[in-house]
Amino acid sequence: MNEYELRARIEQLREDRRRGASELGREAMAVAADAARYLPAESAADLSAALITLADELAVVRPSMAPLYNLAMRWRQQLKASVVTKAEDLRESAAEQAMELANASRLAVEQVIAHTLETIAPYRVIITHSLSSTLTEVFHRLPDKANHHVILTESRPLNEGHQLAALLSGWQLPATLITDAQLGLFVQRADVALVGADALLADGSVVNKSGTSLLALAAHESKIPFYVSAETLKQHRTDTAPPEPEVMAPAELGAPGWPGVDIGNVYFDTTPARLVSGWINEHGLQQRG
Amino acid sequence: MNEYELRARIEQLREDRRRGASELGREAMAVAADAARYLPAESAADLSAALITLADELAVVRPSMAPLYNLAMRWRQQLKASVVTKAEDLRESAAEQAMELANASRLAVEQVIAHTLETIAPYRVIITHSLSSTLTEVFHRLPDKANHHVILTESRPLNEGHQLAALLSGWQLPATLITDAQLGLFVQRADVALVGADALLADGSVVNKSGTSLLALAAHESKIPFYVSAETLKQHRTDTAPPEPEVMAPAELGAPGWPGVDIGNVYFDTTPARLVSGWINEHGLQQRG
Repeated sequence: MNEYELRARIEQLREDRRRGASELGREAMAVAADAARYLPAESAADLSAALITLADELAVVRPSMAPLYNLAMRWRQQLKASVVTKAEDLRESAAEQAMELANASRLAVEQVIAHTLETIAPYRVIITHSLSSTLTEVFHRLPDKANHHVILTESRPLNEGHQLAALLSGWQLPATLITDAQLGLFVQRADVALVGADALLADGSVVNKSGTSLLALAAHESKIPFYVSAETLKQHRTDTAPPEPEVMAPAELGAPGWPGVDIGNVYFDTTPARLVSGWINEHGLQQRG
Repeated sequence: MNEYELRARIEQLREDRRRGASELGREAMAVAADAARYLPAESAADLSAALITLADELAVVRPSMAPLYNLAMRWRQQLKASVVTKAEDLRESAAEQAMELANASRLAVEQVIAHTLETIAPYRVIITHSLSSTLTEVFHRLPDKANHHVILTESRPLNEGHQLAALLSGWQLPATLITDAQLGLFVQRADVALVGADALLADGSVVNKSGTSLLALAAHESKIPFYVSAETLKQHRTDTAPPEPEVMAPAELGAPGWPGVDIGNVYFDTTPARLVSGWINEHGLQQRG
């Protein structure tokens, strides 16, 4: 891996609209491991400095996605604490630490999936918004699929709900696909609302795909529980203000252009903690309050 | 107009996705007037019976749209009360009554527009959902357009927000077009939320394009007023249950089909009266409570 290839991988992380925060966090650790193994360096000190700079860069490549920051910063701490003096030894230990961090994240997600399955067991009709890799796996493992029903949204502008619909169909889990605008109507037919998260803020509020806050409001109005499945790695650091919301390309809306009309395409909204019935992390269901 | 042409006009009313409840109510009265003038009949009694049957049919052609019911029933009452004995006289009076009802509706809408302009005068940024002919005219007549800003939604599945965006652009009224899912985010940048209505129910709740209830919830959460502009003709009769929501063609969502995945395409949702700050009708602003 040379500097050019490293830049290309970082840009891939920045432009990825398909994968969620957990997956991109682990991908960032894979980039870190490859950089540790292959980035040219004259000495252990040079390599360490280059990897610390990389950690700082990976931390903020997707500011709405807390796992990238948290994984990159943990890796950075380990680099700083390292007392290795040979470049080859540093390559090996830094790469191994990055892969271990990715593995720990994978294990935490596995535990979140198991606890989510326990939490939603009593409910028949589940309403969700956007596409979460954690929840996709929950739906995949749901026992007794024929007795459940998933209500899912298109999730404009990129319609990632279509991907989830195709998967649910393949798993013979009955489903209803709706426009995002119908969330208020269809929440009345659901027993539980369930979403993933890109980040959890210090005050307990949840950053997730735009529209999540509308589902939370509608669930609250309909008096059904609203659960968020997310490992603790998604907690946003408490030492800074919440991230500015990520603004994406206006062209994604596919609207014609009109003079004087801006296109709003902000990917994430924030759901206040008050509307969250419980947060399901790797330790189990944390009821609010 | 023969029976075949009459059927075709009624089907046009049923299939119209472009025009709102007020306009379709007036179009129903135009159909009624033409039927009165031209439908074949042997006698005044025959004609009266045919027109009363037509009134009953027009009343329920679009069950979510109260003006059609109210106009058709008022016309029916006048037909029943008529003491005309010559078919020619009945043709003339019934056609005139239908056109007068349409004109009264037009005048009421004019008054709603004027009162809406007064009500929103103190606010700079207006957020709206879907396309209302009444509100389109409000935006058209808004004085000092450069100092206002309209946030409007695509309004899936048919994207009627694009039509409104094109009009606002032509009138040089600055605007931002967003996905429906971003309502929760962008309501925080607005000073007032403003929508039209297809019907007002007896308990004060509002039937309008799906997504309206989400805007109302978000406006309430953001503590900005949520106003509904609609003439009293939109009040749903109190003697029956609210209409079943109109379900439209799944194909409108443009999604691929998947076995076991239904497509939900319900056009209207209901916003509870509690979330409505005020109803602007032809008599002025009616504050809630």
